[in-house]
Amino acid sequence: MSLSTPASLRFRPLGIDTSAEYVVYMHAGCHICRAEGFAAQTRVAVSANERTVIATLNIVRGDLLGIDEASLSVSAQCALGVRAGVMLQFSHVPVLASASHVRAKVFGQTLDRAAMQAIVDDAVSGRLSDLHLAAFVTACAGERLTFDETVELTEAMVAAGMRLDWQRHPVVDKHCVGGLPGNRTTPIVVAIVTACGLVMPKTSSRAITSPAGTADMMEVLAPVDLDADAIRRVVDQTGGCIVWGGGMQLSPADDVLIRIERPLDLDSDGQLVASILSKKLSAGSERVLIDLPVGPTAKVRDAAAAERLTNRLIAVGTRLGLRVKVRQSDGRQPVGRGIGPSLEARDVLQVLNNDPQAPQDLVERALALAGDVLELGDAVALGGGLVLARDTLESGLAWKQFQAICAAQGGLRAVPQAPLCHLVDAPRAGVVGAIDNRVLARIAKLAGAPQSKAAGVDLLVKLAEPVERQQPLYAIHAEAPGELHYALSYALAHPEVIQLEN
Amino acid sequence: MSLSTPASLRFRPLGIDTSAEYVVYMHAGCHICRAEGFAAQTRVAVSANERTVIATLNIVRGDLLGIDEASLSVSAQCALGVRAGVMLQFSHVPVLASASHVRAKVFGQTLDRAAMQAIVDDAVSGRLSDLHLAAFVTACAGERLTFDETVELTEAMVAAGMRLDWQRHPVVDKHCVGGLPGNRTTPIVVAIVTACGLVMPKTSSRAITSPAGTADMMEVLAPVDLDADAIRRVVDQTGGCIVWGGGMQLSPADDVLIRIERPLDLDSDGQLVASILSKKLSAGSERVLIDLPVGPTAKVRDAAAAERLTNRLIAVGTRLGLRVKVRQSDGRQPVGRGIGPSLEARDVLQVLNNDPQAPQDLVERALALAGDVLELGDAVALGGGLVLARDTLESGLAWKQFQAICAAQGGLRAVPQAPLCHLVDAPRAGVVGAIDNRVLARIAKLAGAPQSKAAGVDLLVKLAEPVERQQPLYAIHAEAPGELHYALSYALAHPEVIQLEN
Repeated sequence: MSLSTPASLRFRPLGIDTSAEYVVYMHAGCHICRAEGFAAQTRVAVSANERTVIATLNIVRGDLLGIDEASLSVSAQCALGVRAGVMLQFSHVPVLASASHVRAKVFGQTLDRAAMQAIVDDAVSGRLSDLHLAAFVTACAGERLTFDETVELTEAMVAAGMRLDWQRHPVVDKHCVGGLPGNRTTPIVVAIVTACGLVMPKTSSRAITSPAGTADMMEVLAPVDLDADAIRRVVDQTGGCIVWGGGMQLSPADDVLIRIERPLDLDSDGQLVASILSKKLSAGSERVLIDLPVGPTAKVRDAAAAERLTNRLIAVGTRLGLRVKVRQSDGRQPVGRGIGPSLEARDVLQVLNNDPQAPQDLVERALALAGDVLELGDAVALGGGLVLARDTLESGLAWKQFQAICAAQGGLRAVPQAPLCHLVDAPRAGVVGAIDNRVLARIAKLAGAPQSKAAGVDLLVKLAEPVERQQPLYAIHAEAPGELHYALSYALAHPEVIQLEN
Repeated sequence: MSLSTPASLRFRPLGIDTSAEYVVYMHAGCHICRAEGFAAQTRVAVSANERTVIATLNIVRGDLLGIDEASLSVSAQCALGVRAGVMLQFSHVPVLASASHVRAKVFGQTLDRAAMQAIVDDAVSGRLSDLHLAAFVTACAGERLTFDETVELTEAMVAAGMRLDWQRHPVVDKHCVGGLPGNRTTPIVVAIVTACGLVMPKTSSRAITSPAGTADMMEVLAPVDLDADAIRRVVDQTGGCIVWGGGMQLSPADDVLIRIERPLDLDSDGQLVASILSKKLSAGSERVLIDLPVGPTAKVRDAAAAERLTNRLIAVGTRLGLRVKVRQSDGRQPVGRGIGPSLEARDVLQVLNNDPQAPQDLVERALALAGDVLELGDAVALGGGLVLARDTLESGLAWKQFQAICAAQGGLRAVPQAPLCHLVDAPRAGVVGAIDNRVLARIAKLAGAPQSKAAGVDLLVKLAEPVERQQPLYAIHAEAPGELHYALSYALAHPEVIQLEN
C-alpha cells in the first residue's frame, strides 16, 4: 500500500447480531489490517456518515468478505447508520482518559465527578470495551464506591442521557428493586394515585432476565411504545401513563452497566443505588417510593442488606434533591398468581375491577404502596394514604382512571389466553414451606414468557397453605407444545420449587 | 419443536477469527435459540467429538446460515476439532464454581488453593468468560493478592499445563521482565553458560506487542518451532536450546490472563510474579536469573517498584523451590542497535563473533547476566562469573557453542537484509537527553516487525552522546514501500522519540 490509499473499505452487511457489542469484520488479506497492525480483537475506530464507533475486530479467513470489504455487527451498523456499499474509514483508537480513570479506580483511588463522567460517557458511546467495563464494575463492587462517588456516578449517569421535565409538580414515582415474580403493583398504583390527582408518568422496562417487565405486561393491555410527544399528551390528559421507557435514552449508561453486571452477578449497593436513582431522576421524578422485597430467593436476601440499601438510597436521593421513601416488603414468595405478561395482566384487571377472585396479596400490596405514594405526594395527610387508596380502588375510580390511561395510550386490549395448560400436582399432602422465586421464574420463561405473551405460570398455592396429595400447585401456560414440554421437564426436575412440609 | 428433536445443528465454517475467544453463530430462526432461550451474547455449551467448549452466541439475521446450521469462530472450531457437516450439540452452561470464587475475590475474600485451581482451570478451558476473567484480574490488581494467594496462583498455573523434566541438574534459566527494545541477551547468555557445562533449555515467546520476541529473533538464525522430542534431543546434545515455547502448553493460563491484562493495562505485582514463575517452573527450571530493566519508559518505572517486585519474586520463588536472583538494570534506552528480528540477530552475531562493530552495551549486558547465571548454576565461585563469561565469549567458545545449538535445531541461517532503508536525521545539534522506548518500538512495528523479519529500527545514537545537525539518529528498515512510509510518517509526527538537549 502507499499513503495515497485511503484507509477505507466498502461495507457489506452480514447480519451478525452481537447484542450491544460493536464488532467489525475485515478480511485477513486486507491492506488496512496489515498497514495498521490490526489483529483479531484489536479495538478499531470505524467512521462513516460523520459518526464514529469503536469496535472489536474479527478477522475473516474465507470468502465471506473480499479484501476491499468490511462488515459490521448489527449494533455497529445501526450506530453508524450505514447501508451496503457505503465506504467505511478505519483508524487507531485514541488513548482514552476514561481507561486511565478505570485503572485508577482499580488501584484504589477515589474518582471525582469529571472522571466519573468520562467513564460513563465512554461507556454509553461504546468507546470503553466490555473488558474495561467489567474492570470498572468490579472495582466498584463490595462497598468500594464511596458515598460521594455514588452521588457522582448517579449524576454522571443522568447527564449522559435525556432528562424529562413534566412542568407539573410534584412528580411521583415508584420502583421495585425486583427479584420477585408477579408483584405487578405498578398499574394499580398509577391508576389509584393519578385518580387522586397526582402526576405519575411511569416509564417502565421490558424483561431482561425475568418472565415479564412492567412494560411487557402493560403491552398486553395497551400500546406502550410511545414517543415523547405522545407520552406527554397522555400525561397531560390523565396525569399518568404506564409506558416503555427504553426508547427514550433515560440513563442509557444504566443499561450498559447492567449488561456487564448481570453475567458477573455483581450487584453492589453503590451501583444499584446509582442505577435506580439515575433512571428516576432522568424520568423527571421528584418523590419516589421504592418497594424493596426481602427474602431468601429475592434480590435482597436479608434484613441487614435491606437496611444498608435503604439508608444509601435515601441519603443519595436526598443529596440529589429526590425525596425517597423505601418500603421493605415480604419477598419470600410471588405476589399475585400470574407470572408472565397475560397472566399478570389478568391479576391486575381482577384487582382494578374489585373481582372477588382477585389475589388478595396483590390487592393489599398495591394499596400499601399506593397509600405511601399518596402521602409522599401530599395528596393526603400522613397516615391517611391507605384509606384513600382503598376508597379509590373500591369505588371504581381507579378502574375508570386506568381505562382512561389505556385509552389515551391507544386503547384497552383484551387479554389473550394460552391454548395449552398443564397442572403440576402436589406429590403428597403437606403444608407449603418455601417457594423458590428463581425456579418459578425460570419455568415461566421456558414456557415462553415474555415473548409468548400468554405463556407463564399460574401459582395456585401460597406459603403456609395446607395442600392435599394431587392438589394442583401451579399451572404452566404455553402457546406451543414444545415450550410446554420444555418448561414441564425443567419443572419436574426441580420439585424444590414448592417445598411441602409435614 | 418436541423433546425428541435433538438440540443439534450442522456445522458450517465461516472462517471468522476472533482470536482466543470462542464464538458460536446461530440463525435467529433456529429452534434451539427459541427453545433454550438463547439470545445474542448468551454463553452456550457446544459439544462435538466428545469435547465441549463454552462459547458466546452471536445471532445471524440473514442468509449466512440456514436455520438448521451453526458456525464457530476459528478458535472454537479448532478446540472442538470439527469439519463442515459435523453435528454440533448445544446446551446451557452449568453453574461454574469458579465464577463464585471470582465473585468471592471481588468482594474481598481470600482464595485458597482449590479455588485458585478452579479459576485457573476454567480460564484455560475457556469456561470462564472474558468478563469473568477481567473481573478476576481486576480483583487481584493493586496489591490485592496476598503472598499466599500469589503462591497458590503460581502453583495452580503450573498445574494447569505441562511441566518439563530435563533429568539433569541444576537447570538454569533467565528471564527479562521486558519493555526494553533490543536487549537481545538470551542467545548470548545461553551460548556462554552452556559452553561452560550448565544445562539451559530456553523456551522463549514470540512478540505479542513488541517488535520482536526472542523466538522471533532466533527464528532468523535457526528453526525454533520444535516438538518436545526434538527439543530434548537438542538439549541432550548441547546442554541448551533457544526455542519457541508456545506450542508446549507451559502455563497456558498465563497466556489467557495476559490476553485480558494487556488491554486493561493492569500489571499487578502478584500476577506478574505468578506469570513469570509459573512459566519457569513449567519449563523445568530450577535456578532463574531475572533481568529487571528500570526506567521511565520501561515496564518497571522506578526503584521502589523494582524493589517490591524483586522481593516478591524471590520470596515466592523460594516458597516454590525455585532459586531466584534478580538483576536490576538500566532501562532508560534500548540495548544494542537493532530493533526487529533480523537487526537484533545481526547484533547477536556481532557479539558472538567478537566483531569490533558489536554494540558494546549489549556485550556488557550479556556478560553480566551470563556471569550471574554461571554463579547461580555453581559453574564458578561467587564473584568469578563475569570473568569466566568474558573468557568464554572472547575465546570463541561461545560462538562455537551457539553454532552447535543452531545446527542441532536444524541449521544456522543467513540473516536477511531489508531492501528499503531510510535514515532519520537530527534536526539540530545537541546531546541525546532521553530515548522513548515505546515510540521506538512502535516505529519498528509500523515498519513491519516482527512479521517482516528484516524490518525494524537501527538505533545509531545512545544517551549522552553529542550529535551534529543532520547526523543520522536512527534508520528505519522495511520490506515494502508502504510500511516504510507508514513508519516514517509516525516517526516524523513523534520527534520526542529521541530528545536532544543543549
